[in-house]
Amino acid sequence: MCELLGMSANTPTDIVFSFTGLMQRSGVTGPHRDGWGISFYEGKGIRDFRDPNPAFTSEIAQLVQQYPIKSETVISHIRQANVGQVCLENTHPFTRELWGRYWTFAHNGQLKEIRSKPLKHYFPVGTTDSEYAFCWLMDQVRERFPKPPSRTETLWRFIRTLCDELRTMGVYNMLLSNGRDLGCYCSTKLCWITRRAPFTRASLKDADVTVDFHQETTPDDVVTVIATMPLTDNEEWHIMETGEIQIFRKGEALVL
Amino acid sequence: MCELLGMSANTPTDIVFSFTGLMQRSGVTGPHRDGWGISFYEGKGIRDFRDPNPAFTSEIAQLVQQYPIKSETVISHIRQANVGQVCLENTHPFTRELWGRYWTFAHNGQLKEIRSKPLKHYFPVGTTDSEYAFCWLMDQVRERFPKPPSRTETLWRFIRTLCDELRTMGVYNMLLSNGRDLGCYCSTKLCWITRRAPFTRASLKDADVTVDFHQETTPDDVVTVIATMPLTDNEEWHIMETGEIQIFRKGEALVL
Repeated sequence: MCELLGMSANTPTDIVFSFTGLMQRSGVTGPHRDGWGISFYEGKGIRDFRDPNPAFTSEIAQLVQQYPIKSETVISHIRQANVGQVCLENTHPFTRELWGRYWTFAHNGQLKEIRSKPLKHYFPVGTTDSEYAFCWLMDQVRERFPKPPSRTETLWRFIRTLCDELRTMGVYNMLLSNGRDLGCYCSTKLCWITRRAPFTRASLKDADVTVDFHQETTPDDVVTVIATMPLTDNEEWHIMETGEIQIFRKGEALVL
Repeated sequence: MCELLGMSANTPTDIVFSFTGLMQRSGVTGPHRDGWGISFYEGKGIRDFRDPNPAFTSEIAQLVQQYPIKSETVISHIRQANVGQVCLENTHPFTRELWGRYWTFAHNGQLKEIRSKPLKHYFPVGTTDSEYAFCWLMDQVRERFPKPPSRTETLWRFIRTLCDELRTMGVYNMLLSNGRDLGCYCSTKLCWITRRAPFTRASLKDADVTVDFHQETTPDDVVTVIATMPLTDNEEWHIMETGEIQIFRKGEALVL
């Protein structure tokens, strides 16, 4: 089982606090030793860092902690390998371009028989079932919508049916973003929290770290964090249900 | 005018020495203040760093200098913007997937009227003529070869004809790699050097740095460095001619 972490915010926000919690699960409080990656959107561009080494010993992960990159949309993943060897090309998140936008994807779970699905436009570079599923999903979206649909909701409803189909093949918890929207699909484990004024203090479950968001934010900030399991122990997280999808834009949930 | 830097080696090699020279041209000895990027292949995977800030003040560039990532194939670029604003999505190198391989591209020059060429599979995320040209080139390769041709030379001969066509639209100095081969096309300025045993000392033109490659290498190493202009002042660089293409694999030039 891998761990997912996502963020959607209405103002460029750093994810240092949550990333610090996630990193502990890479070998300190969790067994996820087989690499990690994080993608930050800046406008339509992406900045990504990844490493097949465990996050808690990774020099690049330390950079990400020390250098608080601010972004409105972030996807991160730490990996416990089950399919595909431990190497850079098997390290999430994965990225492909569609309609002149970078799409970024991270997955936890296993999908048996995923390779029985034919691919047309996008092909995996590595050997994980996750990247194969991403390529198949992007293929389906591209076939169905050669141009982006006028309503975002139409797109995400279609993506939900694809996620439902993938879930029948195993476990499919997913984060997917085009930089503007962050889609979160729950197969077995995913939860989220939206922080907004009045901001309070939060304490990490996995490390002795507390942050006072009141000091770090402005009253208009809206920041949603999505994770496999709650990262803090003094806040109420929304636990998603099997088959549920949530789309966030600028920190707010869209209604599909 | 931007600056290009590439490396092809038969063993994972760090590019710290050459990157140090290139970075000086980002505002110290050169005017290239509008961002920089570098992509390292590790197997079929890519590790990339990019920043719209000048390289010589960039914290991420300092990381790349201090943390000698070893790679067999590297492409780097520092930018002096002429088309497209200074932002992350306009920062080279650009990457797309074809045939389950990541292709990485950096360009210097300007291509007028490039947008008159229709695109089919790949679309630019940013607004540079360079990324547009890359998308067009990848489109053409994909149309001509739905599957990779059995002989690499066939592929690169075709890419050369595309480069010749692009060169008629302006200036087109290019580095292009699929992780295995590094293709270098010269429109106005590009040069290369292959270092092999017996290794000697080299001194950077743009900074007071000398390296004794004899200390840093083994007798079997073959390392080719490609740059817009020679980076060292005590070695003989091959100055490429207009319309010339060179393909390097594991540091050695392929004969087309």
